[in-house]
Amino acid sequence: MADTGLSFDNPLFKQFAFYSGVVIVKTMSMSVLTALNRIRKSVFANPEDCAIGKAMNRDVKPTLTDPTVERIRRCHLNDLENVVTFVLVGLLYVSSGPDPSTAVTYFRIFTGCRLLHTVAYLGQVPQPSRALMFGGGLTVAMLMAVDVIRKASF
Amino acid sequence: MADTGLSFDNPLFKQFAFYSGVVIVKTMSMSVLTALNRIRKSVFANPEDCAIGKAMNRDVKPTLTDPTVERIRRCHLNDLENVVTFVLVGLLYVSSGPDPSTAVTYFRIFTGCRLLHTVAYLGQVPQPSRALMFGGGLTVAMLMAVDVIRKASF
Amino acid sequence: MADTGLSFDNPLFKQFAFYSGVVIVKTMSMSVLTALNRIRKSVFANPEDCAIGKAMNRDVKPTLTDPTVERIRRCHLNDLENVVTFVLVGLLYVSSGPDPSTAVTYFRIFTGCRLLHTVAYLGQVPQPSRALMFGGGLTVAMLMAVDVIRKASF
Repeated sequence: MADTGLSFDNPLFKQFAFYSGVVIVKTMSMSVLTALNRIRKSVFANPEDCAIGKAMNRDVKPTLTDPTVERIRRCHLNDLENVVTFVLVGLLYVSSGPDPSTAVTYFRIFTGCRLLHTVAYLGQVPQPSRALMFGGGLTVAMLMAVDVIRKASF
Repeated sequence: MADTGLSFDNPLFKQFAFYSGVVIVKTMSMSVLTALNRIRKSVFANPEDCAIGKAMNRDVKPTLTDPTVERIRRCHLNDLENVVTFVLVGLLYVSSGPDPSTAVTYFRIFTGCRLLHTVAYLGQVPQPSRALMFGGGLTVAMLMAVDVIRKASF
Repeated sequence: MADTGLSFDNPLFKQFAFYSGVVIVKTMSMSVLTALNRIRKSVFANPEDCAIGKAMNRDVKPTLTDPTVERIRRCHLNDLENVVTFVLVGLLYVSSGPDPSTAVTYFRIFTGCRLLHTVAYLGQVPQPSRALMFGGGLTVAMLMAVDVIRKASF
């Protein structure tokens, strides 16, 4: 019988922790990327932040429409919508005792899709590359969620 | 004594997994709804996405102000703000050993409120219907969070 | 050996639950603050919400640009980006069996940074106060995430 504990003693949980850690770090790194681009381009959302631009002798006022910053922010929000729900569902899914090899396959497909989704988004790769990566990740997370609901219904 | 394990062996956790699964699937489905409406109305946020509209012989340019798409996106963001915090708090709450019947009542009220919140938001049902559903869900999640803090303080 | 269970029987998990509860309640309270300010200033995002303002004999139409409400919303989104990822990483981190005193130090720094971040954001405290609090919280969460990935890789 499959181990279902949420602990590193459970090999499947350990693998889940690895892939979750990777996609969470990727998501967090969008915050850093936003901050770096706000400073580099002197594009700030708040009046008090403009002092940073003024210290660099630039004339800045709050702006919410810079294409580079807004693209990173859309990518970040897409991560929040998809990565966060994946990790939440994954915790429930691992504790439901899934088939380990199916589970690890799901984790790998999701992680691969989300890493390539960021490459496609920030690199402005022609569609449907980003749409496919988005759909792949979402499909895996949905399959996991439906499996959780099904198993929890009995 | 109540079982406090985060595992399907714990009947309360299993119920929590069921209701969490339902509200997470509902949240994820907003992504699908946004994508479908972006394609149907040819409303895209990124220049490279407009190729999808052009393939359908429509003249499109990036737009961030379509009322239908923006309404779905506000509903989605409201889910992220409320559903994600509920599931996080719920994991801590279940592991704190709450009274099972109180806990299941909370899970059911939250799930009902959030499903009706979406109906009210997308159906543009007159207020205060949506406000009441929002407030009901938030109140339950707050009660659970305060219970976690209180029990974890000793 | 350190206890790694996600249960209140594990003293480290109990501490994690406490600090997570605090930052989640703080995040949820931004929803309340947004709602109160929308009503106080009659600033609503949806046409059907404007009935609330009209009931107070005010002439209102949907607006998405009120500086007070948008500032609270930016603060809320920043919480979602940072607090949610912290709690997710923290669950994985606690189950990886970290050094308890290091772990509690991380939890305390993160919680302190996020509470002060909100004070700085809503109080419009001159920079770099908010940037430092943001960076402190993100650094702690990143250190925890890297530790999870490292331990899960073996």
